[in-house]
Amino acid sequence: MKKVLIANRGEIAVQTIRALHELNMEAVAVYSTADADGLFVKMADEAICIGSGLPTDSYLNMGAVLDAAVLTGSDAIFPGYGFLSENSDFAELCKEYGLKFIGPSAEVIDLMGNKSNAKAAMQKLGVPTIPGSDGFVKDVASAVKVAEKIGYPVMLKAAAGGGGKGIRKVNNQSELKKAFVDTKRESKLSYGDDRLYLEKDLSDAKHIEMQAIADQQGHVVFFPERDCSLQRNHQKIIEESPCSVISPAERAHMGEVVVKAMKGIHYENTGTFEFLMDREHRFYFMEMNTRLQVEHTITEEVAGVELIKAMIIVAAGNNLPFTQLDCGVKGYALECRINAEDPANNFQPTPGTIKSVHFPFGTKGVRIDSGVETGSKISPFYDSMIAKIIVHMPTKKTAVQKMLRALKEFEISGVKTNREFLVDLLQDKHFLAGDFNNRYIEDVFLKDWVSQHEEK
Amino acid sequence: MKKVLIANRGEIAVQTIRALHELNMEAVAVYSTADADGLFVKMADEAICIGSGLPTDSYLNMGAVLDAAVLTGSDAIFPGYGFLSENSDFAELCKEYGLKFIGPSAEVIDLMGNKSNAKAAMQKLGVPTIPGSDGFVKDVASAVKVAEKIGYPVMLKAAAGGGGKGIRKVNNQSELKKAFVDTKRESKLSYGDDRLYLEKDLSDAKHIEMQAIADQQGHVVFFPERDCSLQRNHQKIIEESPCSVISPAERAHMGEVVVKAMKGIHYENTGTFEFLMDREHRFYFMEMNTRLQVEHTITEEVAGVELIKAMIIVAAGNNLPFTQLDCGVKGYALECRINAEDPANNFQPTPGTIKSVHFPFGTKGVRIDSGVETGSKISPFYDSMIAKIIVHMPTKKTAVQKMLRALKEFEISGVKTNREFLVDLLQDKHFLAGDFNNRYIEDVFLKDWVSQHEEK
Repeated sequence: MKKVLIANRGEIAVQTIRALHELNMEAVAVYSTADADGLFVKMADEAICIGSGLPTDSYLNMGAVLDAAVLTGSDAIFPGYGFLSENSDFAELCKEYGLKFIGPSAEVIDLMGNKSNAKAAMQKLGVPTIPGSDGFVKDVASAVKVAEKIGYPVMLKAAAGGGGKGIRKVNNQSELKKAFVDTKRESKLSYGDDRLYLEKDLSDAKHIEMQAIADQQGHVVFFPERDCSLQRNHQKIIEESPCSVISPAERAHMGEVVVKAMKGIHYENTGTFEFLMDREHRFYFMEMNTRLQVEHTITEEVAGVELIKAMIIVAAGNNLPFTQLDCGVKGYALECRINAEDPANNFQPTPGTIKSVHFPFGTKGVRIDSGVETGSKISPFYDSMIAKIIVHMPTKKTAVQKMLRALKEFEISGVKTNREFLVDLLQDKHFLAGDFNNRYIEDVFLKDWVSQHEEK
Repeated sequence: MKKVLIANRGEIAVQTIRALHELNMEAVAVYSTADADGLFVKMADEAICIGSGLPTDSYLNMGAVLDAAVLTGSDAIFPGYGFLSENSDFAELCKEYGLKFIGPSAEVIDLMGNKSNAKAAMQKLGVPTIPGSDGFVKDVASAVKVAEKIGYPVMLKAAAGGGGKGIRKVNNQSELKKAFVDTKRESKLSYGDDRLYLEKDLSDAKHIEMQAIADQQGHVVFFPERDCSLQRNHQKIIEESPCSVISPAERAHMGEVVVKAMKGIHYENTGTFEFLMDREHRFYFMEMNTRLQVEHTITEEVAGVELIKAMIIVAAGNNLPFTQLDCGVKGYALECRINAEDPANNFQPTPGTIKSVHFPFGTKGVRIDSGVETGSKISPFYDSMIAKIIVHMPTKKTAVQKMLRALKEFEISGVKTNREFLVDLLQDKHFLAGDFNNRYIEDVFLKDWVSQHEEK
C-alpha cells in the first residue's frame, strides 16, 4: 500500500494526510468545488475535483470517487466518517475495483447497518441487548403485547432509521397505537422499508461507547470506553474518556464482551459499540458504528495509540502495532467540538468565511485537530465543525481547567461559534461529577442556559 | 498568590500566561517597544511597556521590572529563561520589594553561578565533578602542574565565564602558558574577574542534563534525563529524553545524586544539573542552571507533568503536585527549535516580519510552543527562536517519523529558517542510533552538510 485516496474532507482528511505521510505513503484528496481552497486539498500529494458542493454530486458520488482512485493509481480508500463510510455498496465496489476499503467488509457493514439484524447477531454472541420485541412487530396487536411485557415507556423504532430519525417514545397503549401507524407510514416514505420494532425506553441512560480494532490475523484490542452522553439532537457536544463513573472491573467486562463480538462477526479494522448504560451500570447494545468516529481522538490520548495510522496498518495486512496491554487507561481526556452555530438561536448553523483565527495550541496536554485556517469557508453544504479541542491530563479536574483556558484563548472572527456554550457546560456541577445522562443537555442544562441567556 | 508578573517575552511568556490562567491567577506582561505587538502582550491580563528594544533598557532593567510589579500589585515575578532569570541581585531585590521570586534563593543562584564555588559545593555533596584544579590556579606554574597531573588536553576556564565564553582548550604546555595570560586578561576585561581554573577535557562527551524540583516543605523530585549533545556554538539544536543510551539503573543513580545535591544546598523550585557523560557513562558535574530551560518541554512530555505550573505552585508555598513515582519515563520525546537563521550562511540570524505561517498542530503527539503569529516581527534584539516543535511518542522511531512530517508541513514566509537543516539532521544515522557527542554537529555533521549544501 503506497497511495491512499481519502474519500472525505475537512479535518478528518487533514489528519489522514498526516498519518499517511508519517507512514511514508502518498495521500490523494478528492474535493468538491465548494472545498477548492480547503486546507486538505493543499496538503494532499494529489487532489482531484469530483463535483459540486452538493454531497450527492461529490463526496457521496461513488462513481466519481472510484474513478479518481483508478486515475491516480491509488491502492486503497480511506472513508473517514459520514459520507460513504458506512455504505456497504461502496465497500463492495471498492473490492470489485481492486481497491482496499480501509474498514470492515461489506458484509459486516451490511449486517451492523440493519438495527434488527445487528441486535440478533449481538444477542447470539452474548452481548446484552435492549429488552424488546424479538425481531419486527407485525401489527399493532403484537406491539401492544410486547410493550406490556417489557413495561412502558417503550421506544418504537424503524428498522432503517438512525441518528434520531424514525424513533418514537410512547408512554401507554393509546400512544403506541397511534405511533405505530404514523411511524410505519413515515418509514415507508423515507426509507422504502416499513419494518418496526420495539425496545425498552432507556432515555434515562448514559451513552457509553467502546471502540475496538482487529487486524487480518485475528488480533483484537479494545480501548477504554468513552462517555458521549452530552448530546443535543443526537449530536455529541463534549466527550470524555474514561467515563467518570465506570470502574476498572466494569471496563474489563465490557472489553471482554466487545472482543468476543468482534471475533464472532469476523470484524476487520476499527469499529465502535454504542451502549446505553442504566443507573445500575447494566449496559445494553444500541448499535455499532462500523467506521472511525469524530471522538476517536480522546481514545488515542487515553490509550496512547494512533487510530488512523493503525487502521491503515491493519488494512495493509500488517499486525496491530500495539497489544491489549499497551491500551490501558492513562489519565483522562476530554474533547470539545467547536462548531459554527449559534446556541442562543437554537443552534442554527452560522456558515461564513473565517476572517481570522487564533488556535490555542501549545503547552502540554492540548491538541487541536482542525481542517480550517484564516480564509477558510464554513460551507452550508457540510457539517459546521471548525475544530476539535482535545485535552489530555492526569485528572478530570486539571483537564477541565486546561480546556476552559484553551476555549477562552480561542479566538475567531467571521463566524459565530458555540464557544461560550461549551465554557458554561464545562463549569456545570453535574458535568464535573459525571452525573448526567443522554437527556441531561436537552431536559436540564439547555433550559437553564437558554433562559439565562435570554435574560442577558 | 493571585497575580504574577512575567519578566520575560516571546514563547516563554505565552506559556506562562497559560499556566497562570489555568491556575486562576492573573498574568502581568512587561514588554519593550520592540515587542508592542507581541502575542504575549495581547494575551496578558495587564501589560506595561518598560523600555526600548535594547535588553538593558527593558528586560534587563531591574528597576523598571520591579516598578511594574509594584504598580500592578503583583505578588510574584516569574523570570523564565535568559534575561534576569539567573541574576542573584534581582532575586534579592524581589525579596526586598516583598515580591516572591519564582525560583531558588539569591544565595543559591549566587553559589551555583560561580563555577568554582559550585564545583566545590557539589564535590562536598558527593556529585562527581570534572577532574581539575582544586579551586583557582594562581599562576602559570601551578596551572602547568595541575595539567600534568590530569593529563592534556585540558580546558582553561574563567570563573565568571559561561555559554562558551572564557573557555580555551589547550593541548600542551606551551599552549597552556600562552592561553593562561590571554584568558586572564580577557576575563578581567569582560567580567572584572580574572580568576581561572583548569579541567580535564571532556569534549568527546555527551551533554546529559537532569532537571529536578523541590518544594518549600523539602520534597524533591528528579525527572528523566535529557540528551542535549546536539549543539552548535553552545546552542542546543535538538534535544531528546530519555537519552538513547542510558539504562534505567543509570538514570536512578543519577537521580539519587541529583536529589542529594538539591537537598544539600537547600534548593527551592526547579533547576537543572548539566553533566558531561563519557563513553563509559561516567558523568561529571558541569554546571547548574538555576532556572527553567527552553527544553523543559520534553521532560513535561516524558514525565507527564507541567513544570511552569509546578514552579508557580511550589513558589506559592504548596506541596509539589506530583511524587517521584509519577515521574517515570513514559515513551520518548524530541524537541526541534525552529529558528530564524540561515544554516547555509553560518547560521546568521534572519530577522524580519512573518508574512504567513502554518503551524502543523494537530494529531496525537505533536505540541508546538510558540510566541508568534502571522504579522509578528522576529527582532534582531532577541534570540531568533520562532517555535519549539515537540513530539512525544512511544518510541524514538515513531517520534522521528512524526517530527519529520511536522517539519515538512510547517510553512512560513517572510523569514528564512533552519527547517531544512533539522530535517536532514533527523535523518542522520548517528542521531537515530544515539551515537553522537557534544562535538558531533560541529566536527562531523555540519561539515558534510555544508559541503553538500554548497554543491547544490
